Amino acid sequence: MSQAPAPGADRLARLVLNRLTEPGDPRVAIWVRYLGAQEVLARVRAGERLEGLGPDARTRSDEVDPAEFLQATARAGLRFLVPGDEEWPAALDDLEHCPPLHRRGDVPLCLWARGSGHLAALCEHSVAVVGSRSATTYGASVAGQLAGVVAAAGWSVVSGGAFGIDQAAHRGALAVHADTVAVVASGADRPYPLAHAALLDHVADGGVVVSEAPPGAAPMRVRFLARNRILAALTGGTVVVEAAMRSGALNTAHWADLLGRDVMGVPGPVNSAPSAGVHQLIRGRGAVLVTRGEEVLETVGGAGEHLLAHQSEPDRPRDRLAPEDQQVIDAVPVLRPAALPSVASAAGLAEAQVAASLDRLEGQGLVERHGDRWRLAEGLDPAG
Amino acid sequence: MSQAPAPGADRLARLVLNRLTEPGDPRVAIWVRYLGAQEVLARVRAGERLEGLGPDARTRSDEVDPAEFLQATARAGLRFLVPGDEEWPAALDDLEHCPPLHRRGDVPLCLWARGSGHLAALCEHSVAVVGSRSATTYGASVAGQLAGVVAAAGWSVVSGGAFGIDQAAHRGALAVHADTVAVVASGADRPYPLAHAALLDHVADGGVVVSEAPPGAAPMRVRFLARNRILAALTGGTVVVEAAMRSGALNTAHWADLLGRDVMGVPGPVNSAPSAGVHQLIRGRGAVLVTRGEEVLETVGGAGEHLLAHQSEPDRPRDRLAPEDQQVIDAVPVLRPAALPSVASAAGLAEAQVAASLDRLEGQGLVERHGDRWRLAEGLDPAG
Repeated sequence: MSQAPAPGADRLARLVLNRLTEPGDPRVAIWVRYLGAQEVLARVRAGERLEGLGPDARTRSDEVDPAEFLQATARAGLRFLVPGDEEWPAALDDLEHCPPLHRRGDVPLCLWARGSGHLAALCEHSVAVVGSRSATTYGASVAGQLAGVVAAAGWSVVSGGAFGIDQAAHRGALAVHADTVAVVASGADRPYPLAHAALLDHVADGGVVVSEAPPGAAPMRVRFLARNRILAALTGGTVVVEAAMRSGALNTAHWADLLGRDVMGVPGPVNSAPSAGVHQLIRGRGAVLVTRGEEVLETVGGAGEHLLAHQSEPDRPRDRLAPEDQQVIDAVPVLRPAALPSVASAAGLAEAQVAASLDRLEGQGLVERHGDRWRLAEGLDPAG
Repeated sequence: MSQAPAPGADRLARLVLNRLTEPGDPRVAIWVRYLGAQEVLARVRAGERLEGLGPDARTRSDEVDPAEFLQATARAGLRFLVPGDEEWPAALDDLEHCPPLHRRGDVPLCLWARGSGHLAALCEHSVAVVGSRSATTYGASVAGQLAGVVAAAGWSVVSGGAFGIDQAAHRGALAVHADTVAVVASGADRPYPLAHAALLDHVADGGVVVSEAPPGAAPMRVRFLARNRILAALTGGTVVVEAAMRSGALNTAHWADLLGRDVMGVPGPVNSAPSAGVHQLIRGRGAVLVTRGEEVLETVGGAGEHLLAHQSEPDRPRDRLAPEDQQVIDAVPVLRPAALPSVASAAGLAEAQVAASLDRLEGQGLVERHGDRWRLAEGLDPAG
């Protein structure tokens, strides 16, 4: 086995390998872990066939001068990050111990980042908010509000830059002047969808657009599948806002689950197809139901960090009564007035006590006197 | 302590005690359990004061001849049921080991039933479907459909006869010609709300209207609280369809939880107040999320009894492809066509294989050829 590579050499070797393989090929990650990137590249160049590196790898390994490519991409505003870099998010290393899904997995060889934000710092407290591209106005509105609350509390919103929920999540964060992170499946320099070029520029202004795929890479399914694991691994938890039964967002949620991250889902109407996948996630896979940003923070926050005040409806008139008066009002009928002895008997209290209590309740407009009989004031709900 | 009472005497003593106390007073249930109903009544008549039996109990105990009252109520179509009767649902006995809630609890002394159904038989496989009286059209529609599916599968729908979700649940069962059970808080002979007199008659025609409160009893809060434990105890599980944050339906769910019954909730839009209580039930108390009757049956059914076929969207074109062709289509870009070597490299397969596969995929309209380059057919979604 080769000697320990100089850091710069490892970096350049990773850059070449990144261009020779598909993002998230777990076989290549294993070669690199056990042989080192330089040794893997040396073997490819020597004509050795390694699983995960295609038959044309040898030819293609000579096509580009990595140092030159690195300079050109840097001029274009792209940062090349490898494990151990100060900006490398340590959370990604959790992928090493995670089983592959759809033949994708393991720690990425590298990342390409664009934007003025610091990826590791932004991801330290972060939540992925993902969902259907064909979102409803309901889903988009909930995603935007939820992302705004999460972002305003200092947690970064991470999403995929796509139409629908992703877009609403980024926008929700940007609307509260927070930085956000887009993890994309195409090259970080190559906006997809094209209509989101301006949105991604906006994300990069303060935040980061990041991709495991090399600059110029086109979007294709295998890259979305690889991308989803990065979304899940970078963040403390994944919130799925709307997802039809086989949405890619469920793949991200699956990764989050495998990685031991919090998996959360926003419910919706049961007859709305874009909510069906989320409902299945909550019903069948134990995702936590969340209805707003505060609940997301409560779920991902450390113990006691974002505990919600117990939510309750505004007080009902009954709540402000002394216990004895509550006992009496609970024993007053709704429609047909009852005489004092009957109310006292139902309340289990002495008649004198109950008479005094009924007078107090009448004074507050909570019971009505009809002759010598009593009933609840109209509009009071006995079953509530 | 008195000798073992003749069954008829115990029955008549319970009838008198039922008229002297509020439904679900756990103190009275305990007296009766340890002394027997006849002995408790004898002590009341001797002027002894027992917790839960009001100061006027002695006077009132002489007001009615129980045998006569029993005959009169029977003529009015009411059956008086006590523990041990053939029609007595054994499931109610679980209340003996359940802590009280809001000073209500324990096994009822008796039940009053109206209708041609057999209460114990109907409740053997049953589900409570409950919720807000101020239901939305969404909630009512989901409750009705869900109840219809549950009822059509032979499970009795049990509810509270109220406006809103209860009404929709009973109607959903009646619509599939199934018998249903209404557990009411007022006397079984006294329709509440009055507007539901016809609905309750319809329920009684084949099913049962049942109450723990004596005939003629008026609805009052303490009776709703007692009634909720009967709903929960009679059934294998409770489904809450819509419930604002302090709805009585949540009280029923709480009872179901204490009794070890399945607690289920139907989600809705997060900005709909009548769904807020259900969402809290799922999020905070571990209720199972259900979206339709089949899922209710899967939850309450015995192991494997109502297992749902794994629900999935209609097959996508990709699903019908051979694994190799799937690998190739996943490596075809969305917008900008790529040449064969690039697709082959991304797919990790030999060019000859990939060329043959691309021809097959083109024949199925899944990829498009542009000169010697390839892209996904328009409308195919790479991220799905």
